[in-house]
Amino acid sequence: MNKILIKGVLLDSVIQDILIEGNLITQTGSNLRAENAKIIDGGNKAALPAFYNMHTHSAMEILRGYADDMALMPWLQDKIWPVEGKMTEEDVYWGTKFACLEMIKSGTVLANDMYWHWHGEARAAQEMGIRMINGFTVLDLLDDSRLPQIQAEVEKVYEASQNYGELVELSLAPHAIYTVSEKTLIWTADYARNHGLRLHIHVAETEHEFLECQKKHGLTPIEYLDKIGILGEDVIAAHMIWLSEHDFELVKKHNLTVVHCPVSNMKLSSGIFKYQEYQKRDIPVCVATDGCSSNNNLDLFEEMKFAALLPKIAGGNPEIAPAAEIYKTTTINPARALGLAAGEVKAGNLADIILIDLENLNLIPQHNLSSNLVYSAHADCVSTTICNGKVLMEERKIPDEKVIVRNFRRVVQALT
Amino acid sequence: MNKILIKGVLLDSVIQDILIEGNLITQTGSNLRAENAKIIDGGNKAALPAFYNMHTHSAMEILRGYADDMALMPWLQDKIWPVEGKMTEEDVYWGTKFACLEMIKSGTVLANDMYWHWHGEARAAQEMGIRMINGFTVLDLLDDSRLPQIQAEVEKVYEASQNYGELVELSLAPHAIYTVSEKTLIWTADYARNHGLRLHIHVAETEHEFLECQKKHGLTPIEYLDKIGILGEDVIAAHMIWLSEHDFELVKKHNLTVVHCPVSNMKLSSGIFKYQEYQKRDIPVCVATDGCSSNNNLDLFEEMKFAALLPKIAGGNPEIAPAAEIYKTTTINPARALGLAAGEVKAGNLADIILIDLENLNLIPQHNLSSNLVYSAHADCVSTTICNGKVLMEERKIPDEKVIVRNFRRVVQALT
Repeated sequence: MNKILIKGVLLDSVIQDILIEGNLITQTGSNLRAENAKIIDGGNKAALPAFYNMHTHSAMEILRGYADDMALMPWLQDKIWPVEGKMTEEDVYWGTKFACLEMIKSGTVLANDMYWHWHGEARAAQEMGIRMINGFTVLDLLDDSRLPQIQAEVEKVYEASQNYGELVELSLAPHAIYTVSEKTLIWTADYARNHGLRLHIHVAETEHEFLECQKKHGLTPIEYLDKIGILGEDVIAAHMIWLSEHDFELVKKHNLTVVHCPVSNMKLSSGIFKYQEYQKRDIPVCVATDGCSSNNNLDLFEEMKFAALLPKIAGGNPEIAPAAEIYKTTTINPARALGLAAGEVKAGNLADIILIDLENLNLIPQHNLSSNLVYSAHADCVSTTICNGKVLMEERKIPDEKVIVRNFRRVVQALT
Repeated sequence: MNKILIKGVLLDSVIQDILIEGNLITQTGSNLRAENAKIIDGGNKAALPAFYNMHTHSAMEILRGYADDMALMPWLQDKIWPVEGKMTEEDVYWGTKFACLEMIKSGTVLANDMYWHWHGEARAAQEMGIRMINGFTVLDLLDDSRLPQIQAEVEKVYEASQNYGELVELSLAPHAIYTVSEKTLIWTADYARNHGLRLHIHVAETEHEFLECQKKHGLTPIEYLDKIGILGEDVIAAHMIWLSEHDFELVKKHNLTVVHCPVSNMKLSSGIFKYQEYQKRDIPVCVATDGCSSNNNLDLFEEMKFAALLPKIAGGNPEIAPAAEIYKTTTINPARALGLAAGEVKAGNLADIILIDLENLNLIPQHNLSSNLVYSAHADCVSTTICNGKVLMEERKIPDEKVIVRNFRRVVQALT
């Protein structure tokens, strides 16, 4: 069995050892021993739970910086969609491999994803060793005559999805209420529930979506999804900005997983997430990067800083969203939402661990580690990344990085 | 004479060479030659103007993470001021040395500073080779009987300030209108003007300052400063959030240098800088980090991202504050404000240059360099930093880094 022994690392304010056996953390404490274990020197490092990124579109790395500072519809119609229309599975494969490099280098080992060419993303994630909840995008542009084709595609991907090992999980991702017809939404949710798949959807992202839904259905987006039976604790809802009082009750009742993407929301001027309203109701929030073309990186350190500062300025109170609370939004909150024994480094949990370099200038002095992580640190403080008991990066080295970068550049050049 | 030849670097979209002689860029172009020059390989790198940080308190590195997520007055009174009261010149010296490490590593070579123990900051900046406009803090807590003592101190620092070489410049920094009496403000401005010194002041940072000023003087902070003769093109005004229509006219009329610190303003909930109002009037804006305890780092890449996103969400329009415009706020805008031939890499300008590593993942692909710099990059993309023709960092190595970190930790430990 695969064994890793991390010696003399800072964990929960104490220098100690961590033993990993198989994919689990089996012991923490002083002077641990293990035969035939790979030894990692934890000196001047702290062990922390690896990050989980709960809403992204990994292969959009291809479009980083391709179009910015534009209104949503011209941005999509004139820039993003034409390139996406040309993308092949091979392009998405290299885009996702490259995204995995960036995620691993910034301490992220789980991507809750939604994109095109499902197998391209799945194969990349599997090879790179990260966890991916890989959303098969369902989108009929409100034309439900396309449903039979979608059904056939979903059946096919469901069969094939069994071949990717334990870290790649299929989910179904109806894009949004304004791009998926009611009939297709309902069928997708039913299929997901009959097959034990999660649902991943953009909800209440823009005021336009909110107003149009009220005009069309006399209901808010959340109310509409409730009425047609989509809401449930298997739903991961991204953005969730435009909510009424009643909507918050529905979120709480159905135990939705709420994902906040502050950088994307600010960059696209989508609106201000009501962080305090969620806090007031004890609704846990996950913080995520969204895709690279509306961010433009996958660094959850930076995202946490935005998540901590936006509610302060919006609420006019610097005490809102303190660092220790925000730190949970990328660690324990997503782990709990997904039902994974993770989000903290302790015996019995999955071995999803990062080691951060306490000699990194941004982590000095160390008055308060979670403050340093949220307000000061960047990706470059991560030295080692471990997912499911496997070392994906050690001392910032990832195998095959150069090959991935070369191929990624090749596909980008051909596409744009 | 000191000569540096940077070979084969990306500059203005073309691979070319850059010749530095003394403290100036003397040539750019193909196949440059120079005898006895230090050669720097620019392969896979881009040459850019180094950043200028127009408002900071360098030695506050000591207080990074010491107190966060608190209301302004308890934060200052219970946390920041008690530690600052104990600081010696030696503490400030090591705090500033450490700040210089962080600045140089993130591509910044000029700090417009304001802090205590002037000689501690000056000595550190001089040794590290960065430019510092070192503000001597003037503060009488509205008690003008302290003026004679301040006058004596200012005379003394003015004499001694001549000893620090061309990169360290004395400025006078009356802290703010709510901490400096009118008599002391007026004397300070007169002294500065009689001695060719700039003025550096916090202005219109909080609503409280704005309302109290109106109550006391029947004027806005800007109007009050205008009335007592403080405003002029030698004034660097930090924050500048709470302004009336008339105030913008005064800013324009007096050609004030306006410094925006978005992270600090968000973290302390000070208010939203009216970016569009400045743009509309063609008032150039500089973007800066403020001190480390209200940020909590000195990374101008990150600061630019906040500066680009805050106006978008505040104005409800993603077209506001595009990347290329924001990029100027840390380069050409501060250079022009200070009257320095800098802010662009071209012959005749000061040799204040950074080389960024185009193999850094956050700079790939390279659809748009200024977008990558503003929205994606962090400090770790800077490989080489040059100030006034002197290499301060090469391949991320700065001489004496370990010694500085060790001493910095020692003084922090003794203080907190």
